[in-house]
Amino acid sequence: MKLKVEENNYEINIGQNIDQELKDYLSKNKNRKIALISDEYVYFIYRNRLHNILCDFDYDIFTFPQGEKSKSMKTYSEILEFLSENDYSRGDVILAFGGGITGDLAGFVASTYLRGINFIAVPTTLLSMIDSSVGGKNGINFNGLKNQVGTFYFPEYVHIDYSFLDTLKKRDLNNGLAEMFKYSVLKDKNLFEILKNNEKLDYEYLIHRSLEIKIEFVKDDIRDKSIRQHLNLGHTIGHGIEGLSKYEINHGEAVGIGLIYVSRAAYKLGIASEPFYKDLIEEFKKYNLPTEYDFKTDEILEIMKHDKKIKDNKINLIIPTEIGNTISKTLSFNELKNIIELGKEI
Amino acid sequence: MKLKVEENNYEINIGQNIDQELKDYLSKNKNRKIALISDEYVYFIYRNRLHNILCDFDYDIFTFPQGEKSKSMKTYSEILEFLSENDYSRGDVILAFGGGITGDLAGFVASTYLRGINFIAVPTTLLSMIDSSVGGKNGINFNGLKNQVGTFYFPEYVHIDYSFLDTLKKRDLNNGLAEMFKYSVLKDKNLFEILKNNEKLDYEYLIHRSLEIKIEFVKDDIRDKSIRQHLNLGHTIGHGIEGLSKYEINHGEAVGIGLIYVSRAAYKLGIASEPFYKDLIEEFKKYNLPTEYDFKTDEILEIMKHDKKIKDNKINLIIPTEIGNTISKTLSFNELKNIIELGKEI
Repeated sequence: MKLKVEENNYEINIGQNIDQELKDYLSKNKNRKIALISDEYVYFIYRNRLHNILCDFDYDIFTFPQGEKSKSMKTYSEILEFLSENDYSRGDVILAFGGGITGDLAGFVASTYLRGINFIAVPTTLLSMIDSSVGGKNGINFNGLKNQVGTFYFPEYVHIDYSFLDTLKKRDLNNGLAEMFKYSVLKDKNLFEILKNNEKLDYEYLIHRSLEIKIEFVKDDIRDKSIRQHLNLGHTIGHGIEGLSKYEINHGEAVGIGLIYVSRAAYKLGIASEPFYKDLIEEFKKYNLPTEYDFKTDEILEIMKHDKKIKDNKINLIIPTEIGNTISKTLSFNELKNIIELGKEI
Repeated sequence: MKLKVEENNYEINIGQNIDQELKDYLSKNKNRKIALISDEYVYFIYRNRLHNILCDFDYDIFTFPQGEKSKSMKTYSEILEFLSENDYSRGDVILAFGGGITGDLAGFVASTYLRGINFIAVPTTLLSMIDSSVGGKNGINFNGLKNQVGTFYFPEYVHIDYSFLDTLKKRDLNNGLAEMFKYSVLKDKNLFEILKNNEKLDYEYLIHRSLEIKIEFVKDDIRDKSIRQHLNLGHTIGHGIEGLSKYEINHGEAVGIGLIYVSRAAYKLGIASEPFYKDLIEEFKKYNLPTEYDFKTDEILEIMKHDKKIKDNKINLIIPTEIGNTISKTLSFNELKNIIELGKEI
């Protein structure tokens, strides 16, 4: 199943066991060198499959330790050095193979090495398949804050093979489902019903539908100044929780908790119904997703002060009103504080 | 005198003693914080003027040691840290005050901090006024190679006040004139005649005309894939010389020498006349610009292998045929080697 992102000139290919299609894609430019960037763990699991895909090409491998800690200025510099030492030129290509951390790191490298080198994303986690591999955002953590440094830069090709999900731990799979719930709350009642009722998940459909929703919000606002900010549903509080937990709570989980808090606050403000947030909690529990996190409001506000979309000391919060509908509110930090307090269970 | 760059949505303001106009521009967004980035030396010279311009705003100052050495991953990280520690948000603005090094460093920071923050360029050297402040390229040196890491990112406003040239050393002024000669060879016989005959240089006209030429080459090819590469005239060999001299030869000087070598080779290849390159040498001598540099061809080729525009082991060389005209040749490294040898004086 293919999805063309006309606006930014790239193609997303979704399928199962489609290594040959990646090979065919790479064969179109036989002369390019390929820099495979991956984390040690994912590379180790798939090393044979990767060598089969890449054996006909001139390629080099760079791996780094798995985990959020690698999304750093240090690893960024190391990858740049690796490319420079191996004489990579602008005509060559970086292939990111892994989850969101790999894609964000490799994408940032791709956008800045020689002011931009070709970039292919092969996401291997559900979360990166439906979120970070598409939309052009990349980055590293800096000064203790998430994604503080990065760019907007698009891959030329995104290869989504959901057979890679077979090796994913249950918790990591659910991490992706939380973000999928976010898409459903944003835009699609039907998707919510599917997630609610489905015994066996149809990944091809779910990934495709999630990306359709994402692309709709991104295409007219790449630089995240207006409509794209709706994708941030659950993220404002979620990023704070992720940070406070020192990434013990992973991204999808944290966004899920953020979504519940903001939905509960919406109910208390009288703009959403009670069953709405209670339904969410029930569904999250089914998927073993956490639904709360204990934090001090002032601590989380401290992290939010570094939100990338703050302007004139105001922050935009995306608030759901029902499944399939959200509004954007520009708030002072005092108003935000009240909403977070409302979001906590009493 | 104003120049609007419609394609990339920014304005260039050229004048003399126009501090008030900068102040007026900044007053349009009174709520933004301003991060002034400058080198220690330039900041020291202009600290009073700068404080007069900025006194009505909320601003912070970051300075770094003058010189090419500061165009590094280290200084880049330090500026990012400075912004993060001072809670700069995306709505705030970076103001680069200084020469090309300052603009390149601050521009790279601006394009990557929070995935892009507002950016104003106030170039203070002739070279940065007519070249690096316009066109969107930025970057740092890496792994011993020039501008290996950077992005394409446009300022929102370029403020060119040529009264800043008053404190420039003669050699640095001439450094800019070499790049101006390049523009004349590229596109404008009349500009060449003016540079040849003028006793007292009319900076307003010269800066304006140089930028017009630059913008013409940039506007349809921001990412430097075709027509923009003509601006590289003199740079292929020039970058090599700059590197070999460990930046003892400065950028404009090196480009000037590169221009002479490629013009002499063009004569020997029978595509340019003898008076053409001899004229150039004569003019350069009038301005105390160096016209040769002693190097081994293999050494310079080693540096050229890292040229950002290499594709499939071929490099594009821009060759002048007469004042106002250039051609682009795609060459193997062996062919390039021959041309460099031809360019040397025998």
